Formats: sequence, C-alpha cells, structure tokens
Amino acid sequence: MSDPIRFYFDLSSPYGYFAVLKIDDLASGFGREVSWYPIMLGAAMKITGSKPLADIEIKGDYCRHDWERLARFMDVPWTMPENFPIATLAASRAFYWLTDDDPALAKRLAMAAYDTYFGQGRDISDAETIADIAEPLGIERDALLAAVQDPVNKQRLKDETQKALDAGVFGSPFIIVDGEGFWGADRLWMVKRWLKSGGW
Amino acid sequence: MSDPIRFYFDLSSPYGYFAVLKIDDLASGFGREVSWYPIMLGAAMKITGSKPLADIEIKGDYCRHDWERLARFMDVPWTMPENFPIATLAASRAFYWLTDDDPALAKRLAMAAYDTYFGQGRDISDAETIADIAEPLGIERDALLAAVQDPVNKQRLKDETQKALDAGVFGSPFIIVDGEGFWGADRLWMVKRWLKSGGW
Repeated sequence: MSDPIRFYFDLSSPYGYFAVLKIDDLASGFGREVSWYPIMLGAAMKITGSKPLADIEIKGDYCRHDWERLARFMDVPWTMPENFPIATLAASRAFYWLTDDDPALAKRLAMAAYDTYFGQGRDISDAETIADIAEPLGIERDALLAAVQDPVNKQRLKDETQKALDAGVFGSPFIIVDGEGFWGADRLWMVKRWLKSGGW
Repeated sequence: MSDPIRFYFDLSSPYGYFAVLKIDDLASGFGREVSWYPIMLGAAMKITGSKPLADIEIKGDYCRHDWERLARFMDVPWTMPENFPIATLAASRAFYWLTDDDPALAKRLAMAAYDTYFGQGRDISDAETIADIAEPLGIERDALLAAVQDPVNKQRLKDETQKALDAGVFGSPFIIVDGEGFWGADRLWMVKRWLKSGGW
C-alpha cells in the first residue's frame, strides 16, 4: 500500500477550494488515499515575499474574475466574500483536533468551512461560526470551542505549517505524491498523469 | 472574421516557451489566427511587486524542477540556462521590426530565440547571438543589428509592453481571446474550452 497523497491547503485560498472538490475522487481512481493538511499560508508568504493575490495590482482583478469563472465552469457555488483573505485559525485547529481519530469527519468540517466561506461568502474567522458549521456534522459545540483554544491544537497547526514549509510547500493547494510536488489547482491533470504512469 | 487571439510572452519566460509551442495549433483548430506580442515582463513585475520565479525562496527550486518536468512531459528540448532570467531586448526589438511586414517570419525568429535559450541553454541577450539565429531564417545580419539599435524599434517594444499592461497583462504567457484574459501555460485547456463554446 502506497503512502497517502499529501494535500496542503489554506482555508482562505480559493484555488484550495476548487482543488479540494476534486482531489479525493482523483486519487481514489488510482486506489490512493489522501491526507489533508490545512496550513497558514501567511507563514509561507513571509518566506516567498508574496502578498495575497487579491491585494496585488492588476493580478488581483484577474484572480477575482478567474475565481468566478472557474466556479461557473465547475458548476460549484461561489460568492466572493467581503472579508478576504482572512485568518482561518479556528477551522484549521478544529480540523487537527478531529483528524487523528476521525479523518473523514475532519474533511467534512473543512469542506463545510470552504462551502460557507466561498460558496455562501460568509466570514469563517470566528470560532462561533465554525461551531455553527460543526454542529450539523454531529460535532459537539462546546467541545469544539474549547478545542480551538487548546494550546495543543494551536501548536499542532503551527507544527504542521512548519513541516509543510520544510517539505517545500509555498502555495495553496500544494500536492505531494510520493515525494513529487505539484502546485496549484491547475495541476491536477499532472497529478493524474503522474499517478497513471508512476512518474515519467 | 474574428479578431486574432492576442498572445503575450517574455522571451525569458519558460512558461512562455512551453505555451508558444502550442498556441497557434490550438487556435487554428478553431479557425483563429494568433498575434504574438513579446513584452518586457520586468515592467509588469514592478507593478505587481513580483520577483523572477527562479529568485524566490522555495518557489524557485520548485519552478526549476517543474520546467524540466514539463519539458520531459511535452517531449521538447530543455536546458536550464546558466544566465537566467535575462533581458531579451534584442530579440524582442527584432521581432517588432519584422512583424508588420512578415508576421510568420517574426514568429520563426521568436521560436528560434526560445529554442536557443531554453532548448540549448545558450544566452540570447546579445544582439550578435540574435543575428546568428536570424541568418539561417534568411534575415540579413547587418540589417538586424541596425534594427535592434533603431530608436523606432526600441520605442515600439516599450509601447507594446505598456499597451499590454494597460490591457491587464501581468505575466507570461498571457492570452486574450475576444477581451477575455487567461494567464499561464496551464490555462490553455481553458482557452480551448472558451473557443469551443464562445464563452460559458
């Protein structure tokens, strides 16, 4: 059995949202599992000297148009959030709180957070909002609110972000297949080809 | 008859090299012509605050690996040039000197410049090198050397770069189809889909 594919994303990243909708299906077509790693992309941006896409002159306008266009093309919900980008600490910490015991539940929470933020355009930076999203998934509200303040989960998110940086991750989404890195929602075709041929 | 597709590129851009090998064939499949516009990407980078990819921490290593991988995948020549990136003023001015009278010849010169730089890894910043490349295409050596120093061609390159910036171009390659912009060699699938459906 091969190691799981590693899927890195920031919950405030539109291209992460588009890729998350596809990555598990793509991998399962090749009998592969996917481990998800939400990270704080801001830490990578400090190293690469990048700014959030939406804040960049000319490029920001292009990206806003591109997100709306991609959503239309993929036929998935899209509402440009007013507050963008945001720090998604609460959702990311809650993810790591859940993922060791129940990775499928952690993924459902991340998907719900993405849908709330980019599908409905609702700010997800507040922990109470994450609790609202989590409850319908059967996650106990008070336990989640405590977990996102727990130093263990805070540290876990920092550690996972640092490990991602050490592994060469600098953007969202970023996919590592058996040591081979692929950056961007546009590179899923290449991931697929790589899986098909076992490298080339 | 539709307007030509506009294809913007920097002759020092690897992703421009990969896209240039495909764009005309892609367009002709839909009965469309392509006009090429070499630009000085440095001018766009000043506005977007970007640095050359190869100079960016972590991302630079990824990109070098990605170029070699893409070339292998596309089965096209690739030699990472020692001097990279470079100013490709001479080749770009020579392109504009030729393109009004003979756009096909200008394209052949640009292709030869790309092949020399990224296929063979040979520095093309020097005008003498461009003259070497141009001669086998039937372009008179002394005329080319004079043209790249001609203020008219120098100004033309500046003007075309400014016009590209005004049209929202900030990267290489950048493709504009009937007013719709697409950034990146990875977006040719989207250009194709757009041409197929006339937008969506």
